[in-house]
Amino acid sequence: MKKKESVTALTISAWIIYLVIPAVAIAAEIGIGEKVYIDSEVLGETRELWISIPENQLNSEERYPVLYLLDGDSNFRHVSAVAEFLAASNRIPHLIVVGVLNTDRGRDLTPPSTDPDDTLNFPTHGGANNLQEFFKSELFPFIEKNYRVRPYKILVGHSLGGLFAIHTLTTRPELFNAYIAISPSLHWSKQGMVNQAEKFLASTNELQVDFYMTTANEGGSSLAAFRKLAGALGEHNPRGFRWDYNHMPEETHASVALKSLYFGLESIFNGWSLDKAVEVYKIAGIEALEAAYQSGGQRYGYERALSNPLLLQIASQLIDLNQLDQAAQLITEDFDAVPPSYFLNLLADKYMEYGNSVRAKVLYESSLINNPSDALAKARLVEMGIDPSTLITEVLVEEEVLQSYVGDYQLQPNFVLTIFIDSSKLYSQGPGQRAAELVPLSSSRFSMTGDDSQIEFFSAVGIEASRLVLRKFGMEMEAVRLRQ
Amino acid sequence: MKKKESVTALTISAWIIYLVIPAVAIAAEIGIGEKVYIDSEVLGETRELWISIPENQLNSEERYPVLYLLDGDSNFRHVSAVAEFLAASNRIPHLIVVGVLNTDRGRDLTPPSTDPDDTLNFPTHGGANNLQEFFKSELFPFIEKNYRVRPYKILVGHSLGGLFAIHTLTTRPELFNAYIAISPSLHWSKQGMVNQAEKFLASTNELQVDFYMTTANEGGSSLAAFRKLAGALGEHNPRGFRWDYNHMPEETHASVALKSLYFGLESIFNGWSLDKAVEVYKIAGIEALEAAYQSGGQRYGYERALSNPLLLQIASQLIDLNQLDQAAQLITEDFDAVPPSYFLNLLADKYMEYGNSVRAKVLYESSLINNPSDALAKARLVEMGIDPSTLITEVLVEEEVLQSYVGDYQLQPNFVLTIFIDSSKLYSQGPGQRAAELVPLSSSRFSMTGDDSQIEFFSAVGIEASRLVLRKFGMEMEAVRLRQ
Repeated sequence: MKKKESVTALTISAWIIYLVIPAVAIAAEIGIGEKVYIDSEVLGETRELWISIPENQLNSEERYPVLYLLDGDSNFRHVSAVAEFLAASNRIPHLIVVGVLNTDRGRDLTPPSTDPDDTLNFPTHGGANNLQEFFKSELFPFIEKNYRVRPYKILVGHSLGGLFAIHTLTTRPELFNAYIAISPSLHWSKQGMVNQAEKFLASTNELQVDFYMTTANEGGSSLAAFRKLAGALGEHNPRGFRWDYNHMPEETHASVALKSLYFGLESIFNGWSLDKAVEVYKIAGIEALEAAYQSGGQRYGYERALSNPLLLQIASQLIDLNQLDQAAQLITEDFDAVPPSYFLNLLADKYMEYGNSVRAKVLYESSLINNPSDALAKARLVEMGIDPSTLITEVLVEEEVLQSYVGDYQLQPNFVLTIFIDSSKLYSQGPGQRAAELVPLSSSRFSMTGDDSQIEFFSAVGIEASRLVLRKFGMEMEAVRLRQ
Repeated sequence: MKKKESVTALTISAWIIYLVIPAVAIAAEIGIGEKVYIDSEVLGETRELWISIPENQLNSEERYPVLYLLDGDSNFRHVSAVAEFLAASNRIPHLIVVGVLNTDRGRDLTPPSTDPDDTLNFPTHGGANNLQEFFKSELFPFIEKNYRVRPYKILVGHSLGGLFAIHTLTTRPELFNAYIAISPSLHWSKQGMVNQAEKFLASTNELQVDFYMTTANEGGSSLAAFRKLAGALGEHNPRGFRWDYNHMPEETHASVALKSLYFGLESIFNGWSLDKAVEVYKIAGIEALEAAYQSGGQRYGYERALSNPLLLQIASQLIDLNQLDQAAQLITEDFDAVPPSYFLNLLADKYMEYGNSVRAKVLYESSLINNPSDALAKARLVEMGIDPSTLITEVLVEEEVLQSYVGDYQLQPNFVLTIFIDSSKLYSQGPGQRAAELVPLSSSRFSMTGDDSQIEFFSAVGIEASRLVLRKFGMEMEAVRLRQ
């Protein structure tokens, strides 16, 4: 016995996408977003935005938090890629990324300074408050109007952009819910930002904000200012404020950006992923898990409830952690659907690995009863000296009844499932897919051969079915029959 | 005195791009690559490739190593983004990324197995050697024909793709120069790959290959196999073979991918970046630096020579490390061009920070002599009680001579520099740029106001200039005069 390629959330969502978009139109170009322009009265100019939306946004009504990225063009590719990767890995929610391109970064990203060094190097400096106003009164409404967003907003800035992020956190903290400052230019205005931050933190009682900052190998006065600011974070503690920082001396001012974003997003979304939920379930059971999962979403504006696919994920993690009895309990007691055979087999294999053939046998048997075409469960039972055919009660359904199920069923806007009879057997077929035999489990419920899923037919009036329900991975999808 | 925003390699390349592409055509879509198809006789099918080329490839004759990515679509976005980011941060060379999409990954990525678990889950398994042949006889020639590539090739695979990478390393190691195996499916064929690798390493004397592998929280037999393989790497030591590995228990089988690629590329290109070159220069001087820089490129097929922009980078790093005298030595003795004023000022500021106003004064003065419009050097000297006007010898050039420089000069295919006279003063102007006054340093050499660059005019015959040379950041660009 050994570890199988485990069916992950990725596989599940790939399956959903496959159902939803049966035939993808192939473009020659691989795109990651679009360029959009906004006329700003506040700034008196047109600004270019680079915008990346989660791939599945086009096919859902889901809304997403927004990550606003300063120096939008130079950081856009890796920031949007890291955000997408972490979301696909269930570490953070899917985000819309809005990169704001510069026209005069020395003007927009800097608070006023009287230090001659700053005024010489950045003669147009001092426009930070103006850029804040642009965000608040023009950019936010524009994005909210044109994209499906949630209220949760993240600001990410690098270098002078990091300075702007800390300036905004300490002057208009309500503008964003989270701030990531990558190697901020803390030397600005004779390190004035450090004092500004200290005063702000000392005089603030409540701050429902997440903050993360980094510094690289810059050293010198930048590092000194960073340490002073880090000290201020530790000293003052507004209610609700969460923060973390990292000194990365192995990175340069440029190379620090990707790791900062990666660890920054993980820090901000600490509590989002299911990793801790597994601990909670192990210690305190399903109600506590439900509560932890809900609260892990609330900070980011999500009302989350445990779903069967999530429970399957958690159960898989329990298997990974060798908590087999708890995985079994979760999937038998707390899972209100037919457990998929792939999962029962996985758990059974693991029991076998630990020598518990009694538990394994029961699971292989359940697997085969739910899904009589499951080859793996069949083979395992044969290995154990059990004749699998004794478990499978052949259900005979009269051809007249089968005939009443024949027809086309609209599963998704562009996906019609066709049910037909061939040689007295019922088959299901989606566009571009192979036909799969439907093996009867009862007169109305069928197991789809080779697919670990079940189909149940329902009739409103009369004999002819009016709809079907497809069940897979604990999810249900309904399809209404199309009248010919 | 404090740290300035330092001019990095990014700034320099941004400047070059600005010169080369003065007016970028804005597309609505943000693209990162193209989809390409190849008909394979070996596999008997058409395969889809996703290909990302370094952004500047369109504008140069440069050739690039190629990263071949298995499971091409699902990993393409973050892998190509990380590769681009690390290259822009000077950690690795720019790479062409070729993602190979699957048609039947269970077939293509697996060596044969007699383990019933494998054969049940992957009924079409066993096609790995066929896929190797596809790479060698079809894909490599296709990519070499259609893209500007170097011979250096990297193979990156995840899960079954990682298994394929190790299988290829241990059966046809000559196919690639480097292998990254991300959470490889080492449980395959009853961990047969571990034995295969052990035998291969034990019987191989020389192996000019870099190898990096990771495992996540999979645990169980996967982790056991990983540890066994790691042990074999330590035990056998073919000449030239470099390897490293990481166990990342905080990551899942999915989330491990990005970090593995990031650290894997850093591991493979260990020696590429200039970080160690700085150490070498500090200890052993310019010849040793030249040698180290060359050898750091040779492993990857690069003939590298130190250039002035690189020397500027190294000198900047020396400043960051507070090695001021060595930075000064490098830029005065080993730099065969006019040192840019921004750099002289940076170094002078740092000397001031450490109280050495004598060295600082000399540097500010050089800065101003090279670039009489440099406001920062001027201000610093005023602060020191020195009248900067005494340093600037006003050079008078007769208007007839100035007139001989007037005209259009082709700096790049799409970039014409216009030289004109206004109120007896010479100006230079690029398309879409503001005109900059040219302050004479001699009758043929001018400093461009506000740009830290110089222009020198040359005449072939007669009085009228036939070409000019633009010097900036230690680089030279020649522009031939256009006949009217």
